[in-house]
Amino acid sequence: MSPKLDLDVLDRLHNCSILSAAQFDLPLMQELSKLAAYLQLRKFPAGHALDDKIMAAAFFEPSTRTRLSFESAMLHVGGKTLSVADAKTTGVAKGESMRDIGQMFNSYADVVVVRHTQQQALQQLTEYMRIPLINGGNGSDEHPTQALADWYALMKWRPELAFGTLPEQFRLTIGIIGTPGNMRTVKSFLTLALLFHKNINHITIFSEMADPLGAELRALTNASPITFDFSRNLKQSLEYLDVIYMNAIAFLGDGYRFFGDEFSLSSQSQLKTDTVILHPLARGEELGTCLDDTDHNLYFNQADGAVWLRQALLLAIFGRVRNIVPRELIK
Amino acid sequence: MSPKLDLDVLDRLHNCSILSAAQFDLPLMQELSKLAAYLQLRKFPAGHALDDKIMAAAFFEPSTRTRLSFESAMLHVGGKTLSVADAKTTGVAKGESMRDIGQMFNSYADVVVVRHTQQQALQQLTEYMRIPLINGGNGSDEHPTQALADWYALMKWRPELAFGTLPEQFRLTIGIIGTPGNMRTVKSFLTLALLFHKNINHITIFSEMADPLGAELRALTNASPITFDFSRNLKQSLEYLDVIYMNAIAFLGDGYRFFGDEFSLSSQSQLKTDTVILHPLARGEELGTCLDDTDHNLYFNQADGAVWLRQALLLAIFGRVRNIVPRELIK
Amino acid sequence: MSPKLDLDVLDRLHNCSILSAAQFDLPLMQELSKLAAYLQLRKFPAGHALDDKIMAAAFFEPSTRTRLSFESAMLHVGGKTLSVADAKTTGVAKGESMRDIGQMFNSYADVVVVRHTQQQALQQLTEYMRIPLINGGNGSDEHPTQALADWYALMKWRPELAFGTLPEQFRLTIGIIGTPGNMRTVKSFLTLALLFHKNINHITIFSEMADPLGAELRALTNASPITFDFSRNLKQSLEYLDVIYMNAIAFLGDGYRFFGDEFSLSSQSQLKTDTVILHPLARGEELGTCLDDTDHNLYFNQADGAVWLRQALLLAIFGRVRNIVPRELIK
Repeated sequence: MSPKLDLDVLDRLHNCSILSAAQFDLPLMQELSKLAAYLQLRKFPAGHALDDKIMAAAFFEPSTRTRLSFESAMLHVGGKTLSVADAKTTGVAKGESMRDIGQMFNSYADVVVVRHTQQQALQQLTEYMRIPLINGGNGSDEHPTQALADWYALMKWRPELAFGTLPEQFRLTIGIIGTPGNMRTVKSFLTLALLFHKNINHITIFSEMADPLGAELRALTNASPITFDFSRNLKQSLEYLDVIYMNAIAFLGDGYRFFGDEFSLSSQSQLKTDTVILHPLARGEELGTCLDDTDHNLYFNQADGAVWLRQALLLAIFGRVRNIVPRELIK
Repeated sequence: MSPKLDLDVLDRLHNCSILSAAQFDLPLMQELSKLAAYLQLRKFPAGHALDDKIMAAAFFEPSTRTRLSFESAMLHVGGKTLSVADAKTTGVAKGESMRDIGQMFNSYADVVVVRHTQQQALQQLTEYMRIPLINGGNGSDEHPTQALADWYALMKWRPELAFGTLPEQFRLTIGIIGTPGNMRTVKSFLTLALLFHKNINHITIFSEMADPLGAELRALTNASPITFDFSRNLKQSLEYLDVIYMNAIAFLGDGYRFFGDEFSLSSQSQLKTDTVILHPLARGEELGTCLDDTDHNLYFNQADGAVWLRQALLLAIFGRVRNIVPRELIK
Repeated sequence: MSPKLDLDVLDRLHNCSILSAAQFDLPLMQELSKLAAYLQLRKFPAGHALDDKIMAAAFFEPSTRTRLSFESAMLHVGGKTLSVADAKTTGVAKGESMRDIGQMFNSYADVVVVRHTQQQALQQLTEYMRIPLINGGNGSDEHPTQALADWYALMKWRPELAFGTLPEQFRLTIGIIGTPGNMRTVKSFLTLALLFHKNINHITIFSEMADPLGAELRALTNASPITFDFSRNLKQSLEYLDVIYMNAIAFLGDGYRFFGDEFSLSSQSQLKTDTVILHPLARGEELGTCLDDTDHNLYFNQADGAVWLRQALLLAIFGRVRNIVPRELIK
């Protein structure tokens, strides 16, 4: 792994909208995570990098956690924020078209983060944007920056994942609890997982659904050298899982659904000693707080890192990385 | 038109509250629009002009659009913002007096933008303010900064409106769809229209009401050299209208009412080739999106410009114009 | 009184959470109020002191007034703000644990102000915080920064209170309207009052409750040299009260209760000419607006000062006082 940043790779994000995890490849993941790590380690000052930029956070579905994570990221690099914490109750007219909404953010901001209950809203919006748009979660479709943060946590935990080749016996087996076909965080996480196929042997998906992938993801997983299987028995599988990805929330229509006991983890769970757990919080009953003070807990690290990964992303989108990185860290 | 700014004119806004479009005269419109245009063209840096100032946005009636436009304006010139996106649900006690509310903003901010459902709320509030107050829309009364943005768009479209004298045959005929007597944006727009009487021949008001002006506005229009008439037949009038001002919203009590088909514009409408349409969005059915990609569309320009016009206004209110404008642009 | 600041005293707040008025002693009150006064008088620039710091305002119970006061304070000293105006409606999941919420703010901010309806929520939260937490009002328990602002107003009104010894005949008699045992502002105010025992002769508590203090406060008042009594007859006591502390709000369960006429003040009330009234607004019927323009009104001063006192507190918590105070003002 070169400690130097390849700005040509990061420049591919310049002025880009971020709609899907599928926009990222391994080099982008490498450079973004290196930049995020440098920011998190305060390797160089970045507090005024986006002084002249405004980010709008437009949450048509409320999410304090994601909104504050983005706003905190923007503030850390000197940017300013416009906040629509809950578009439903704060005045965007019912039935207002995505075009008019897009036009509004074009006029007011330099980048906009949008969360929406409807999958197609983001795609509609992007047609009218003159400024980059970041998908902050769209219905049951995608939540790409959450997945970037998930993998940033895993890359810090096991740097060889992105920057080397693990010996065969150390390649990872990952358990994903949830239904990638209709849960946005799980879908985006799985999409990025495919990029690390050199170091992942196997992925087991734990879901109650008959077809947890759906056609689109099944095509991708079929084409991957990673082997997949599906299970409803998490307990029996714990002995071989290196990474467990969990999620509290299943979108079924407009509602949420919590999984039952069989997909829960607690201090009773027979985890391998070096298994790590990821969870894009907030959590429900499925993840016992008794695990918080154990080495299995990578989820707090994940939430911490998300703010820095999002800073890296914003800096790349605005083409400002070269303004702050010292020359000796540039390839 | 002199490209130089007359700061004596802009200084008349120093420390002033902005309650009504009637506070503005033609020289103020000229200087504000020139300043806004310089800001929009980035003629000189203004990003730190209000670094030490705080603007509170107090929306007792929610309006994402107006709130974000003001907040974006303040952030563009370096100011900071306090945001009350929906005073009803975020803790201003029911029945709290305007005096106590005014006192609160005196303590916390350097300028306050207020939107309220009640016309008289702003007038009450202004009695107790030690800081400038900007009317962001008060019931069915006024929305002066919207009208400033409307006319800023028109002045960019046809600079002679403010800075010259059009030959008789080119003087404008304007159609206003709505009821100035009880629609705030329409009232403020019409009030400013009277300032441009040298270059406006005629205004037709399209309204279902028997008396769309009311006594106060009728006195003003009667005194104006502009001729007025009233109509319920928009289609027949399209052939002679140079500017059409539309608005989705009629305040009738606490509710909204959308106009019917007869007051709508779409690609079917027989507009003159050079007619421009203004609409202070959000829109309803009355303005077809098929017009968005035509030269008739001045409404997106209008929304864009609003952010810059509001910056000009804030800079004038804080007396900071001379701090940022280079000497060669000062009269 | 030395005009110089004793930074050793203020350093005791460095990185500290502020949960209770009981954390403060007289030297801290002296130094905080001197610092607040210097800030309010603009004795030295402080507008960039916290440029690199982020404050989250997390209001699980909405309060526009307290939230904006803290946000305004943070913005005045250059800090940035993350705002959760109403946690209930903007996406913090029901039943989300205090630990996960604390973790979230650890990741996103450098200090967090929390208001909550539940007394024990703050104590739970503080166990998990790696960043300082400021109690912005927790149920019926405490509102320590309100009390700091109350006493800052009194110290400006009568500096000898904190910095000298009043002759016996000028020592204060204070009337507190409310029930310290279950009203947070009153409890915090009374707790700080005990620090000024050298200059306070007597406190009368006006309450409808049989036991307005409760066991905890009774132990403290019994140990104080200040004499206490309890009354339900405010009118008869007005002739001897130098300071009257009022409060609109009694927390009874989750609701509010307004006191009746017997605990109200108006222009009819027979106040001594030099009596001052404190009220941590918003007010109800209990405090007539006719008193606003009299010398009895210390409550507007109190609201003004709160923003500056909170700036002093934030600067001390971040250990940044010595960065901004000129050497000649440091002891």
